[in-house]
Order: sequence, then structure tokens, then C-alpha cells
Amino acid sequence: MPDEDYLRLSFAKAREGVSRGQLPFGAAIVKGDEVISVTHNTIYTDGSIISHAETNAIVDACRKLRSLDLSSCTLYATCEPCPMCFGACVLANISRVVFSVRLADGFIPGFNILDITNRELKDLGNAGIEVTGDVLREEGLGLFREWRDHTQGGKANGAEI
Amino acid sequence: MPDEDYLRLSFAKAREGVSRGQLPFGAAIVKGDEVISVTHNTIYTDGSIISHAETNAIVDACRKLRSLDLSSCTLYATCEPCPMCFGACVLANISRVVFSVRLADGFIPGFNILDITNRELKDLGNAGIEVTGDVLREEGLGLFREWRDHTQGGKANGAEI
Repeated sequence: MPDEDYLRLSFAKAREGVSRGQLPFGAAIVKGDEVISVTHNTIYTDGSIISHAETNAIVDACRKLRSLDLSSCTLYATCEPCPMCFGACVLANISRVVFSVRLADGFIPGFNILDITNRELKDLGNAGIEVTGDVLREEGLGLFREWRDHTQGGKANGAEI
Repeated sequence: MPDEDYLRLSFAKAREGVSRGQLPFGAAIVKGDEVISVTHNTIYTDGSIISHAETNAIVDACRKLRSLDLSSCTLYATCEPCPMCFGACVLANISRVVFSVRLADGFIPGFNILDITNRELKDLGNAGIEVTGDVLREEGLGLFREWRDHTQGGKANGAEI
């Protein structure tokens, strides 16, 4: 399947998360033509600030593949992975990251995120991981608009969990 | 207690991890004078590449404090947090990071880590978090020597889990 189709799996999963009161972030991990994991952000249900869509997908893929090494896998994400998640992709040897909207587009008020792009991290950290952004950007921006309409602003770090 | 005493809690926890076949990394989260979490790296037992000492401590602290906001908390770590873990500290609003050895000192062959220091990430990402490194560095380096003697090299990503 083309990148766009895999990316749409992460969009659909993000919408599923929103319908359950989560933030509008989804991710999918694909190896060859096999979809390994499709996850959404679960910080509120997990009560953990690190349960992002991407870290959830990496943990799930490690367990399904019974390996800490996700070489040859591509991670698709509705939004450019935050520096925590991009660092996790590098640790897991993910080969390629494909995202829709940029970090700045997906900013949720009330959250504190290191303001560094994946490309800056890759260049500064001498990482071999391939990064492709702005795929289906208009659809991705639409997902965030839907979420804002749905939540009228949403929750943030300070929310009770 | 002074920083050195809290840092030694992370050293002791790292040694506990090593005795269970884990990597030599420990972390502690302290709020005021209350020790909230003391954890070690559990990537092999969890089968998850993201179960670092620091992420484990953050998840544990979020659950114990029933909050995604760890403002006013200090994270102590045997080794400078990797970029994934430093990104997690910023997401959690950790106020201060205190570490012993540097990322380069704690490098484990076979692992792929973005080669960017906490200070570079903080400066580039405009983060308010305070960073203090090289605390008890000789003791910290001793911990890594102990681990190397214990494991004669240890496991890495490729290890079966």
C-alpha cells in the first residue's frame, strides 16, 4: 500500500481515541506490507504522560515481534513525533518515520514539549532514520479541527486523571 | 537531603537491576523532601525498548501523585537521560534533572541513541528545565565498570526477550 493508506490507519485510530476522550494522535507501525500496531494516545486512561500514540505503537510492536529491534519498520503518525517519541523511534531502530501535520500544527495548549523538529534531531544526533513529513497535511489538519470542535479545547497536563 | 544522597538511591536501584540481569541505569523522582519513585531500567523484563529507568520513574510518579504534571519534582539519574527520557521529563514538567555520568560514558554497545546532550536539547528546545550533570561522576563510572565486569559486555537490542 502507499504511505497515504497506512497513514490513514493512524487517522482512523486517532478518531477512535477522540471518541473515547483521548487526544487526537494516532500511529501505526508497518513492516514490509504487514501492519504490526495501530494505536492512539492514551495518557488519560493510562494516567501516564508518556503514553503517546507513537510510544504505545513501539511498545506494542516490540511485544508482538518479540524484539527490541524494530529495524525495517516504518512508523506512521498523524503528527510529527515529539522529541520523546522521535528518541524512542531511534532507540527501537525504526527505519523510517512518516507524518502528516507538523509539531507546531499539533500543539495542544497546556502541554510542554521540546520545540525541536524531527529533522533537527536527526541532523544533530547523526541518526540514519529517514523522515518524511507533510503527507496528507490537509487531512491531518482536519483531524485537529474535528478534535477542537469535539472538545472545545480539551484537557491538558493539569487535568485530573 | 543533598543531591548526592538522592542520586545514591538511583545508584542502589541500578545495582539491584544489574543483579536481575538488567542494564546499569537507575532513577529517582523526589518532590520537596519526599522520595516518590526509585526505578531501574527494565527493557528486558518488560520486552519494551522504552522501559528506561527515567521513563519508568515518570510513569510511576504520575500514578502515585495521580497527575500528569510533575512540576516541582527533581529527577535523579545514574546517567544523563537519553533524548527520549529528557523529552519525557519536559512533557511531565519535571523542574530539575540531576545526573551522574554523561550519555557518552553510559553508552552500551549495540544500542542506537540520538547523540545529543541534555544541555543542547534544553537550549535548542527553549526548555525551562534545570540540568545539573557530573554529580558523583567517579562513583557513577564505577557502577558502569561493575556492570561490565558482571556481564562481560551485556546484551543489546538484538537480544532475545
